[in-house]
Amino acid sequence: MSTEPISAEQLGREAELVERVQRSFDRAPDARLKQLMQALVRHLHAFVGEVRLTEQEWNAAIRFLTEVGHITNDKRQEFILLSDILGISMQVVSVNNEAFENATEATVFGPFFIEGAPLIQNGEDMSFGAVGEPCWVVGSINDTSGAPVPGARIEVWEADEDGFYDAQYSDGRVAARAHLFSDEDGRYRFWGLTPTPYPIPHDGPVGGLLRAVRRSPMRASHLHFMVSAPGYRTLVTHIFVEGDEIGWADSVFGVKESLIREFAKHPVGAPTPDGRDLGDRGWSDVRFDIVLAPARIENEAAEQKLIP
Amino acid sequence: MSTEPISAEQLGREAELVERVQRSFDRAPDARLKQLMQALVRHLHAFVGEVRLTEQEWNAAIRFLTEVGHITNDKRQEFILLSDILGISMQVVSVNNEAFENATEATVFGPFFIEGAPLIQNGEDMSFGAVGEPCWVVGSINDTSGAPVPGARIEVWEADEDGFYDAQYSDGRVAARAHLFSDEDGRYRFWGLTPTPYPIPHDGPVGGLLRAVRRSPMRASHLHFMVSAPGYRTLVTHIFVEGDEIGWADSVFGVKESLIREFAKHPVGAPTPDGRDLGDRGWSDVRFDIVLAPARIENEAAEQKLIP
Repeated sequence: MSTEPISAEQLGREAELVERVQRSFDRAPDARLKQLMQALVRHLHAFVGEVRLTEQEWNAAIRFLTEVGHITNDKRQEFILLSDILGISMQVVSVNNEAFENATEATVFGPFFIEGAPLIQNGEDMSFGAVGEPCWVVGSINDTSGAPVPGARIEVWEADEDGFYDAQYSDGRVAARAHLFSDEDGRYRFWGLTPTPYPIPHDGPVGGLLRAVRRSPMRASHLHFMVSAPGYRTLVTHIFVEGDEIGWADSVFGVKESLIREFAKHPVGAPTPDGRDLGDRGWSDVRFDIVLAPARIENEAAEQKLIP
Repeated sequence: MSTEPISAEQLGREAELVERVQRSFDRAPDARLKQLMQALVRHLHAFVGEVRLTEQEWNAAIRFLTEVGHITNDKRQEFILLSDILGISMQVVSVNNEAFENATEATVFGPFFIEGAPLIQNGEDMSFGAVGEPCWVVGSINDTSGAPVPGARIEVWEADEDGFYDAQYSDGRVAARAHLFSDEDGRYRFWGLTPTPYPIPHDGPVGGLLRAVRRSPMRASHLHFMVSAPGYRTLVTHIFVEGDEIGWADSVFGVKESLIREFAKHPVGAPTPDGRDLGDRGWSDVRFDIVLAPARIENEAAEQKLIP
């Protein structure tokens, strides 16, 4: 990188190139794609110009992206990890889920949701044998006026005590994921696992970047929720554990104050809310009352495929 | 994308996230890597915030980058193509090769240079059987004061008349590439091929993007040069053909006014400068006088590997 001052002529040449590249998208028939590409060009060139990116650094970036591409497969999405650790995933969630009155806040979706998780009834266990401390989870689903939302579909999923989702098991087992529906009073309850911290996959190029900048790959302990009901904005969120050792240092910036909950600990032998006998295991319990925002009308229009 | 006005609270939350992500890089031991990552975060988040990127668009971007990664291999570098068609490659060239007095301007390196091309003597033919119209190329290598630079290493490479570099041939032949040295007067001469337009590889995701925005994949006709000599800044450049059908619409934005040259056409049977008998073929000739800038001292320091 040069430390000499940059001449006005040089800055003019750089600006002229940015203009030329932007104009190359002028004939794009899709106005939104044109807007996205022209804005992307402006912001990427502003980055290059500001940091005076060297040819060696550009080469390192090409090599890095190539490695990210090569480790990505059906089970491993390193581009999503990259987006996550740059806070882009969380910013996209923020931009698309503006706070609405007292509605529950959203956070990152993550790569581990799977369609078609088993149905459980209220009060049943979603762990399906995944290792971990049992956790009794209860709450209500209401709209912003406080009216209960019965029949809302609640998807829940989480990592086991060893930090693995079932999608990461080698035997294809389904565990620690399920869906259930809120009852006629808009209430729900199920047995899950007390969330524990775990690292994002960090044996690839994104892990290498985190090490190079001395960042931890650990995620704050959390339990995933996705709640949908006709007429409401689908809520993708987590609850986080009060007093968690990772907390705000969450590697993907997912933590929000409003999503931190107390997970009360109960010793071995303490009576459970539903009389279940947990043998020699302690347990925890948590309450998560959810408020759904009304659906936005323009959602449909945004479903367009960008590049045919 | 929402059309509602964005509240100050929402913008505040978005800015707070950008701050938090930037601070996560504070402990990076390499000051330059820290600067690069923090600036990248700022510019990428500014893009997301400005265009109000939807979750569907973010998904489309992840899918696109995944496809770019999967088509990239030892012979096909789709990330470089992507950088090229966004003008980033050309901007990096511009930032790193500021105009210096009357020195010849640089342009994009491209993905088709290969180390170890055959040595030819001045006056010999670098086409090695590649198809195309013969072109007699002559010129001088001087410093910015006008003094000749003898013994400069000149690498030259180009596509054949069908638009293919030898690296794209299936039989591993070396053709239309060579290196030679300027003579004691700083002059050089060789037979090459009259450059013709050709498309960048466009059967992958980058080609799909170009089609979606109605951009052509064609490159302006050109002949590559890389000139190096001790004490001088290595020059990576092309010459372009005056009156070329692609010209300024070059898909990678490589064209510069100062690099356009007249390729004079000569009919079948016209006597050649060196008396070579070209049989039933016409030929062209071009002059490219090159001026080398002095080497910059800080080049070495930039060679550091960014991510160990």
